Amino acid sequence: MSNTFGKAIKITLFGESHGPAVGAVVDGLPPGLRIDKDRVSAELAKRSGPESVSTARREPDEVEFLSGEKDGYTQGTPLTILIRNTAARPGDYEKTAETPRPSHADYTGYVKYLGFADASGGGHFSGRLTAPLVAAGAILQSALEEKGITVGTHISRLHGISDRAFAEEPSEDIKALKGLDFPVLDLNASEKMIKETEAAKAAGDSVGGTLETAVCGLEAGLGEPWFDSIESELAHILFSIPAVKGVEFGEGFAMADKTGSEANDEPCFKGGRISMRSNNGGGADGGITNGMPLLFRTAVKPTPSIAMKQNTVDLGKGEETTVEIKGRHDPAIVHRAAPVVNAAAALVIADFIARRFGYMALRNE
Amino acid sequence: MSNTFGKAIKITLFGESHGPAVGAVVDGLPPGLRIDKDRVSAELAKRSGPESVSTARREPDEVEFLSGEKDGYTQGTPLTILIRNTAARPGDYEKTAETPRPSHADYTGYVKYLGFADASGGGHFSGRLTAPLVAAGAILQSALEEKGITVGTHISRLHGISDRAFAEEPSEDIKALKGLDFPVLDLNASEKMIKETEAAKAAGDSVGGTLETAVCGLEAGLGEPWFDSIESELAHILFSIPAVKGVEFGEGFAMADKTGSEANDEPCFKGGRISMRSNNGGGADGGITNGMPLLFRTAVKPTPSIAMKQNTVDLGKGEETTVEIKGRHDPAIVHRAAPVVNAAAALVIADFIARRFGYMALRNE
Amino acid sequence: MSNTFGKAIKITLFGESHGPAVGAVVDGLPPGLRIDKDRVSAELAKRSGPESVSTARREPDEVEFLSGEKDGYTQGTPLTILIRNTAARPGDYEKTAETPRPSHADYTGYVKYLGFADASGGGHFSGRLTAPLVAAGAILQSALEEKGITVGTHISRLHGISDRAFAEEPSEDIKALKGLDFPVLDLNASEKMIKETEAAKAAGDSVGGTLETAVCGLEAGLGEPWFDSIESELAHILFSIPAVKGVEFGEGFAMADKTGSEANDEPCFKGGRISMRSNNGGGADGGITNGMPLLFRTAVKPTPSIAMKQNTVDLGKGEETTVEIKGRHDPAIVHRAAPVVNAAAALVIADFIARRFGYMALRNE
Amino acid sequence: MSNTFGKAIKITLFGESHGPAVGAVVDGLPPGLRIDKDRVSAELAKRSGPESVSTARREPDEVEFLSGEKDGYTQGTPLTILIRNTAARPGDYEKTAETPRPSHADYTGYVKYLGFADASGGGHFSGRLTAPLVAAGAILQSALEEKGITVGTHISRLHGISDRAFAEEPSEDIKALKGLDFPVLDLNASEKMIKETEAAKAAGDSVGGTLETAVCGLEAGLGEPWFDSIESELAHILFSIPAVKGVEFGEGFAMADKTGSEANDEPCFKGGRISMRSNNGGGADGGITNGMPLLFRTAVKPTPSIAMKQNTVDLGKGEETTVEIKGRHDPAIVHRAAPVVNAAAALVIADFIARRFGYMALRNE
Repeated sequence: MSNTFGKAIKITLFGESHGPAVGAVVDGLPPGLRIDKDRVSAELAKRSGPESVSTARREPDEVEFLSGEKDGYTQGTPLTILIRNTAARPGDYEKTAETPRPSHADYTGYVKYLGFADASGGGHFSGRLTAPLVAAGAILQSALEEKGITVGTHISRLHGISDRAFAEEPSEDIKALKGLDFPVLDLNASEKMIKETEAAKAAGDSVGGTLETAVCGLEAGLGEPWFDSIESELAHILFSIPAVKGVEFGEGFAMADKTGSEANDEPCFKGGRISMRSNNGGGADGGITNGMPLLFRTAVKPTPSIAMKQNTVDLGKGEETTVEIKGRHDPAIVHRAAPVVNAAAALVIADFIARRFGYMALRNE
Repeated sequence: MSNTFGKAIKITLFGESHGPAVGAVVDGLPPGLRIDKDRVSAELAKRSGPESVSTARREPDEVEFLSGEKDGYTQGTPLTILIRNTAARPGDYEKTAETPRPSHADYTGYVKYLGFADASGGGHFSGRLTAPLVAAGAILQSALEEKGITVGTHISRLHGISDRAFAEEPSEDIKALKGLDFPVLDLNASEKMIKETEAAKAAGDSVGGTLETAVCGLEAGLGEPWFDSIESELAHILFSIPAVKGVEFGEGFAMADKTGSEANDEPCFKGGRISMRSNNGGGADGGITNGMPLLFRTAVKPTPSIAMKQNTVDLGKGEETTVEIKGRHDPAIVHRAAPVVNAAAALVIADFIARRFGYMALRNE
Repeated sequence: MSNTFGKAIKITLFGESHGPAVGAVVDGLPPGLRIDKDRVSAELAKRSGPESVSTARREPDEVEFLSGEKDGYTQGTPLTILIRNTAARPGDYEKTAETPRPSHADYTGYVKYLGFADASGGGHFSGRLTAPLVAAGAILQSALEEKGITVGTHISRLHGISDRAFAEEPSEDIKALKGLDFPVLDLNASEKMIKETEAAKAAGDSVGGTLETAVCGLEAGLGEPWFDSIESELAHILFSIPAVKGVEFGEGFAMADKTGSEANDEPCFKGGRISMRSNNGGGADGGITNGMPLLFRTAVKPTPSIAMKQNTVDLGKGEETTVEIKGRHDPAIVHRAAPVVNAAAALVIADFIARRFGYMALRNE
Repeated sequence: MSNTFGKAIKITLFGESHGPAVGAVVDGLPPGLRIDKDRVSAELAKRSGPESVSTARREPDEVEFLSGEKDGYTQGTPLTILIRNTAARPGDYEKTAETPRPSHADYTGYVKYLGFADASGGGHFSGRLTAPLVAAGAILQSALEEKGITVGTHISRLHGISDRAFAEEPSEDIKALKGLDFPVLDLNASEKMIKETEAAKAAGDSVGGTLETAVCGLEAGLGEPWFDSIESELAHILFSIPAVKGVEFGEGFAMADKTGSEANDEPCFKGGRISMRSNNGGGADGGITNGMPLLFRTAVKPTPSIAMKQNTVDLGKGEETTVEIKGRHDPAIVHRAAPVVNAAAALVIADFIARRFGYMALRNE
């Protein structure tokens, strides 16, 4: 698959950070899906993040639909999303090709692309590629919302500071997060996290964090036992987002300290329908949604681009050296990753609905 | 893809726990790959686990190659692995269809398959489906070892008890783990874990755990930036293994508490070749192997089948009830999952090698 | 994809002609599809062909469902079809590995599989692999028939002898063909074709032919403009059937001699619904079904296995030599290919219905 | 797959005839492949055809590489080809949405896209989508030529007029065809065909034709027995090209009149390497190339857009009516399809080489 993800609804991603453009082709959408351009812009703005804790590279991210759109609706043909790179400054990155930045894709990209790939700003590896992903996800989030399915993500932890957990029924929390470009449930925690990030920025350093995501309104029955469990497909796309280093569902790694009697979610009736007394499994059993909110966490490493001088090697000379990263960088990316995770989740869920009920089932009628 | 996983080397899984057989078709193997049947048996035996901490359902797991094998070598045509179910006892499970066991796939399977699927022993969801996966992985592990690539997994945590971490260079640890059916590096920790598991068994309960896996001898350059990062593909197959609830690479979720200056892995030269001063990223940057050992952890929930009486619902009567699980079950599955994780890792790595260099590159010459 | 075909409904084929078995795994079927085992047997019997004009290798083709079936219905899990090879006589073919039979896959298989593949009876290339394909197709044909979709194929030409064409509305013709193992519409032509085939057999030679297939009851709207036109998907699977050398839709190659005004199919109303005044396009415009019967022809080359002595090379000695084919062979395969073409068409159509409306849409309710 | 074709090298197509642009994303190319922009332009010019026998819609087809290209070489990242639509005149087509043109995709597109798709000029169904396909194919043709693999196509028949066949060894013929935008081997036949096409144009009509393609320099061993035979993959992409209605390999449909002893290709030695005494099979046995030139023919129907008044239906009013097609159309498309077929063949062959030997094997070293 490589640069194409999805089975019934497929997204094909392209672009380099400092090339002409980044974009995506989305195939398998039904005709007549309304494209809410304000929603697309709003999600892209959240992806840019608030100025004090995000990169100084700021560009309008204007979306052009090269195909598949007409009069504000999908045509049903492949939808092509184009975002031109207007703030490209390749000069900042000239040396990275030879002196790979620690924990960046400079070295691995060099091995894979033999020096032919434009490594400026991360090139094809750049987080900038998530912009068309967010745009595509925004369109699907609108469609899912008309079916009562909502997705929300908050920063559950940032450099040791924790947010409160989602409420047992997270719908209201998801609503509250919708407008935030630094999405935290507890305002007190939010302030501390922002200060911590600003402090890292001042120190020429960066911080990591964890995102927690909830999906509400999902019916039971989506997913496959082998190999396309709902967890498998979500993890697949989440682990392709730059800087993601961990994914867990429900209690996740805390399961290692639990007994079955503690961890099991017992079926019960709530309001006339089948529910569970707890949600330790994160809303999926046997790889298939069980009707509970889908709950997962995504670990995001600290931005590898930091201002401090770091050790590295000179690939040309074959000797050790140091590198100081110029460019414009984020002291944290965890908040900017939140709308990307929402978009990824919307793509996966829409894909599973389309696989089970046909792609026409995504239409808003 | 559903029941088919892989791009250049593909495995198609089939079977039900208490049906005639479980099996797999592996396509894309080169001709002339030696099939070490003893190795296949050894991995399947490890998957069965030591008797005191594993299910009482014990069967020989005899592998028949229905196609693709001749005189101990792959033909290059699809290799079909068949394992007959000899110890099937569907009677034990008769009621599970109507009273879903907590945190099992009984309810989600019922929704998805509308009652037509044989739910006995988990049916198609059963961990028994991992047997042909392990058999396929054993063949690829042999092939990778001839190229100097080794895979090993230990129980890094079991109900609060921790094993020591892999050594910085884990090759020797991997060797030490090879023969163990309860794979723990520190023998003292191993004893404690076994006792803890036996105690859970005695209490009619079960325990969860975490596996840590290392892959040594991997060259840099395997994986894709979008969407098939090495982490994506590994997580995809790992999350399809029953009971897996979390996957993290390198420092994983601990990244949330780190700064960039702590987390970054600085390139250096070691023994004339490029290496890193640390391995917090788990051997991959930008989704592509960087030449360091690949390091990841997999969270395995406690076996949901426990002897205690549990609450559930009666799907037929539409009322709440209780369920007592008869059958034969494991007090822990984390140790049995270890060879499955090794097999999954071998499949993913072989697939990436085949994608980059062609499937003929997997031959042992 | 290689040995897996289909998007929403996928078939994975395996086996060698003289190995233990041939089989298929079919994934993506809905639960609760009735499996008419008599229909499966009937289609397999047609695939064997009448004795006088078919191979002397005759075996019962007993189907075992290794998974996915319960009490005569699909479970919704992968359906595994196994047919053991009971009449295997590998000794007959011993020498073919070294002296490739003309227009067989002996030489190309040798190049691809480096001598590791069992070439007896064609090995993995054998027409025997079509048996599980026919079994899978029979199940889908039953399901489609309950939706009013019928598929039929006749020998439109055999070594210069022509059958009459399908009637403009071919439903009755399809019914008439259903029971025939030498499917010809005009009985007079049928007799001539059988005589011609018997004559070829007597001469130690073989004959080629053309099949014409009609699918009735298809709604408009199935298929994709790029790249999965209904013609593309059909041709893909048809050209994987051994001996197929041509596929054409509607007027096909005769289009080269026509003008647009002759070839165009003008829309009109018939019985209150949109129809066309002619069907030169074979039922598809822009790669999508237009509601007219789907009409296509498949060219089948003469069986390459003939009794006459033929020239070839000795791969071991590197010199020219001759080969006399022993084994048991068909003087024609065109009639035996007819049920295979029907099965292939059923698979493609079911797949397109599942893609558009979800796989649950294939259920018979 | 739908709008994505290929396994190791994949092309994703997008665009509408009268939308902003058409384009393609090509993934899986190795880094460092030289992009000969003159060759790309030359192939696009051939696709436009000579003025007297082609549409009056003429635009420069300027290619912009949005990603994946740097300094005239592939980066190894997804290559995005963009061709803006500069001569869009949607007004010409206003009525086609309601009164579908005979043998166009107007009606089937209406059923599939429910009226949301822009049908102007065929919309997403338009032959204009072949422009980015031709551009991608031109890049791969250059790469294949450096490996000694050449592809050529001539009009073997046009409205009853035949060209001579390819020479037994077609390399020289392929060279001769390279510069021609009306590719015919026999100049006399060429003149007649052009006159015939001009006559059709004058009569407000159109003509169909057949293309014959040869690929030289292919090694044996490319292709798969099931389901990805070389014929299957070629037919798949060929049948997605608008107006293609038939594909045959070697003797194709003429096989129906032959015996095995006439049709079989006997292996022999020629110049020290294995060859065949004839090439009736078109260069493939068992779905795998046999080292002989690959030979196939593609049937192209007459342009359905003709100036004559034709019968159709009014979808809005639900009654029969007539339609007169304005727009700018081709009196024949067979000559314009020739470079498209070459591009399609280059894509398929490059994909098979990449599957067997890895995508790095396509580099020119």
